[in-house]
Amino acid sequence: MDVIEIIRTKRDGGRLTPEQIDWVIDAYTHGEVAEEQMSALAMAILLNGMDRPEVGRWTEAMLASGERLDFSDLDRPTTDKHSTGGVGDKITLPLTPTVAACGAAVPQLSGRGLGHTGGTLDKLESIPGWRASLSTEEMRRVLTDTGGVICAAGPGLAPADRRLYALRDVTGTVESIPLIAASIMSKKLAEGTDSLVLDVKVGSGAFMKDEPSARELARTMVDIGKDHGVRTIALLTDMEAPLGRQVGNALEVAEAVEVLSGGGPADVVELTVALAREMLTAAGLTPGVDGVKDPAEALADGSALASWKELVRAQGGDPDAPLPVAAEHRVVTAPASGTLSRLDAYRVGLAAWRLGAGRERKEDEVSFGAGVGLHVKPGEEVGVGEPLFTLHTDEPERFDRAEQDLEGAFTIGVAEEWEQRPLIIDRID
Amino acid sequence: MDVIEIIRTKRDGGRLTPEQIDWVIDAYTHGEVAEEQMSALAMAILLNGMDRPEVGRWTEAMLASGERLDFSDLDRPTTDKHSTGGVGDKITLPLTPTVAACGAAVPQLSGRGLGHTGGTLDKLESIPGWRASLSTEEMRRVLTDTGGVICAAGPGLAPADRRLYALRDVTGTVESIPLIAASIMSKKLAEGTDSLVLDVKVGSGAFMKDEPSARELARTMVDIGKDHGVRTIALLTDMEAPLGRQVGNALEVAEAVEVLSGGGPADVVELTVALAREMLTAAGLTPGVDGVKDPAEALADGSALASWKELVRAQGGDPDAPLPVAAEHRVVTAPASGTLSRLDAYRVGLAAWRLGAGRERKEDEVSFGAGVGLHVKPGEEVGVGEPLFTLHTDEPERFDRAEQDLEGAFTIGVAEEWEQRPLIIDRID
Repeated sequence: MDVIEIIRTKRDGGRLTPEQIDWVIDAYTHGEVAEEQMSALAMAILLNGMDRPEVGRWTEAMLASGERLDFSDLDRPTTDKHSTGGVGDKITLPLTPTVAACGAAVPQLSGRGLGHTGGTLDKLESIPGWRASLSTEEMRRVLTDTGGVICAAGPGLAPADRRLYALRDVTGTVESIPLIAASIMSKKLAEGTDSLVLDVKVGSGAFMKDEPSARELARTMVDIGKDHGVRTIALLTDMEAPLGRQVGNALEVAEAVEVLSGGGPADVVELTVALAREMLTAAGLTPGVDGVKDPAEALADGSALASWKELVRAQGGDPDAPLPVAAEHRVVTAPASGTLSRLDAYRVGLAAWRLGAGRERKEDEVSFGAGVGLHVKPGEEVGVGEPLFTLHTDEPERFDRAEQDLEGAFTIGVAEEWEQRPLIIDRID
Repeated sequence: MDVIEIIRTKRDGGRLTPEQIDWVIDAYTHGEVAEEQMSALAMAILLNGMDRPEVGRWTEAMLASGERLDFSDLDRPTTDKHSTGGVGDKITLPLTPTVAACGAAVPQLSGRGLGHTGGTLDKLESIPGWRASLSTEEMRRVLTDTGGVICAAGPGLAPADRRLYALRDVTGTVESIPLIAASIMSKKLAEGTDSLVLDVKVGSGAFMKDEPSARELARTMVDIGKDHGVRTIALLTDMEAPLGRQVGNALEVAEAVEVLSGGGPADVVELTVALAREMLTAAGLTPGVDGVKDPAEALADGSALASWKELVRAQGGDPDAPLPVAAEHRVVTAPASGTLSRLDAYRVGLAAWRLGAGRERKEDEVSFGAGVGLHVKPGEEVGVGEPLFTLHTDEPERFDRAEQDLEGAFTIGVAEEWEQRPLIIDRID
C-alpha cells in the first residue's frame, strides 16, 4: 500500500477501498503514515467527502485500532446518548440517572470542554471527590452496581481517533461531516453500548450552525450505528439559545439536581424526558409498559434523584456537599423593557468561557464556579434595569470582556417579535 | 496571524491576503507552522486554486525566504531557460553555450533527476571532473569568464521552496499548477536573470499530460515572471516521444556534443535553435542584427562548441575525456516491418530509469552510462529484426524489466498512420 496513492485517490474525487482505509488508519496509528500525510488526506476528505461505505469502514478501522468494551453480560440492556455539544447542555447529568432508574444501563464515556461549549466531565468534577478516570474494571463495577457510569475514555479506546482528532484540530480539518461522524461513532461503538441516541444540535451555539449540515451529520451517524449493529436514532434539537438558565460547571450541576428533584427549567426537563424515552425504547424497554417506569415519573417520584446520588457516590463524589461558588459576581441589567426575543447561545457560551468556565488550551484548568446565570429566557418579559444575567468568576478582571460579549447577544423587543421555536426539530432513524 | 484561519480561508474557497501569504511562508520556513499544517494548506490550494495576485505573492514570499543573486553588473544581458522536464531533454547542454556564444550570459541553476525524467546536473556529472556545486563567487566568476554557468542551487536560494517541495512530494500535493509555477519561478527569479524562456512540455513523457494543463502552467509562470519585472515567454513543446535518439546521462552528453558540432538529431537542433533565439530576443539581442550571431550559425561555425568546452573546463570538467560507458548492452529488435507510428516517451523514460539512469530515492546514485538508444524515431521505417532500441546498463539483471516497459511503448504500422506533430506547439507571452 502506498499512502501517496491513497491521498491522490481521494484528492482526485475517487473512493477509497476498504483495504486502503484499513491500511491507512493502522499505519497512521503505528506512526508509519506521517502527520503531514494524514492531514493532507483529511483535507482531501473534507473537500471531496466520503460515501456511506467509506465512512463506515473508516469508523470500523478506528474502532479496530483499540479495545472494544463488552457489557453484553449485564442483566439489563445498555444504551447511551451523545450530544454534539451546546451551551448550557447539562442533559447527560439528569438523563443518565433517570434512564438508570427506569431499568436500562448507561455506559457513558464523556469528554472535556474546549472552546465555548462545556464538557460533561468538567461539570461533574465540580462535585467534591468525584473522579472521571476509572479503569475498565471500575467502570464495569459502577455500571453493574448503579446502572450508570460517566467517565473519561481510556487511552486504549479508539487511539487512532485520539491522534487524528488532535491533528485535525491544528490543521483546519475539523469541519468534515464524515470525519466528525466517524470520530464520534468510533468512540461510542467502542463503549460497547447496544443502542445509542444522538442529540444533534443546530443553531448559533452548536457546532452545526445550519439545519442541512446537522441533518447530514445525524443521518451519517445513524447509518454508521445501524451498519455496526447498534440501534441508533438521532434527535435534531435547537441550540439557538442556551439550554436552561445556568451556563458553567457547578452552576449546571445545581440545575441538573433541580431537574432531578422534579423542578428545573422546562426546556431541560423536556429534552431529558424525550431523550430518556428514546434511550429506553432503543434499549427495548417501552416506558409505561411491563413495569418500565416513564422518565417523567422517575423525575417526579425521587427515583432519578436517588439514582444520581448513588452514581455520584460510586465515583467518589459527595452529592450532598456544597458545590464550589465563584469568588465574585456581577449582575447585568436590561437596558430596555420588553420581551426577550433573541438570546444568542454562542455569545453566552463565549462569555462563560471568558469568565473561566472553559479552557483555552487542553492543559488549562477550568474554574468550577465560573459562568453565566440567565434571569430571563427568550419569550419572557423584562423591565428596564431588572437583572438579565449574573456573571460569576474567580477573577474580576474577566467581567468587562464577558459583558462585552453579551452586549450584542440579545434583543429586547415587543412580544410579537418572539416566535416560539420547537426544541426538538426532528427525529432521524 | 493564525495558521488555522489561513487554512480555513483557502479550504472554504477564499482568497489569501498578501499578509497571510507572507506570514505563512515565513513562519513555515522558520518552523513555526508545522509540516502537517502546511500540507493541509497545500491540499486546499491544490483543490481550490490560487488566483494571479495570490500565486504572485506566494512566489515573492518564497523568493524572500532566501538570497537573490544579482548579475546586473555583468557587461552582457542575462537570460535563462527552464524546462518542465521530459525524456531525452538534454537541450540545456547545447543551448547554454550556444546562447553564450551569441552574446548573452546564462546563469542557470539546475536540478537532479527523480523519477522518469533525467536531471541536467546528473548528465553533466558524467563528464570526468565536472563539478555541480559552486559557491556564489565561483558561479559569478564562471559566468563572467565564459558567459554561462550551470550549477546546483545553493541552500540559501528559496529555502521555503526546498522545504515545501520535499513536503509536497510525500503528501500527494505536487500536482497543483499554482504551486508548481511558484516553485519553479521562485528559484528562477532567485537566479537574478533579466529574462527567462520557459519550455513547457506536454505529452506522455511530460509532467503535464494534456495541453490545457500545460497551457495553464505556462500562462501562470509567464504572468509571475512579468509581474516580477523579468521578461518571460513560454514555448509549449511536444513530449509524446523522446527528444533526440539518446536517453541517459552520458548518452545525452554525447548527443549534445554532436549537436554542438553541427550535427545531431533534427528535433534537438530545432528546439535548441528556437529556444536560443527566444532567449537572445528576451535578453534584448536580435539574432542576425547588430553583430548578434544567429544560434544556427553558432552551431555551424564551431563557436558554440568552443563555448561548451570553455564552460565545461571552467567547472573542472575535461570536455575531451572519454565519457563513461555502461558495462553491458542489449539490442531490442523490431517485431514487424513498417513505419514507427508511435513511441511513448514515458515508457522510454521509465526503461532508462530502470536501467540505472535515474534514481529511486533522492540519496541514490545514478549510473552515468545507463540508458536507452533509439535506432528509429517516429515516422521512420524499420524492418522486422532490425534494431529498435539499444539498452545500456551496468547491471544486466535490469534488462528484462526495462524490455518489458518498452513492449507496449511503440506501434509499428503503415506510413499513413503516422502523423507529423509540430515540435513547437505554441508560444505564450
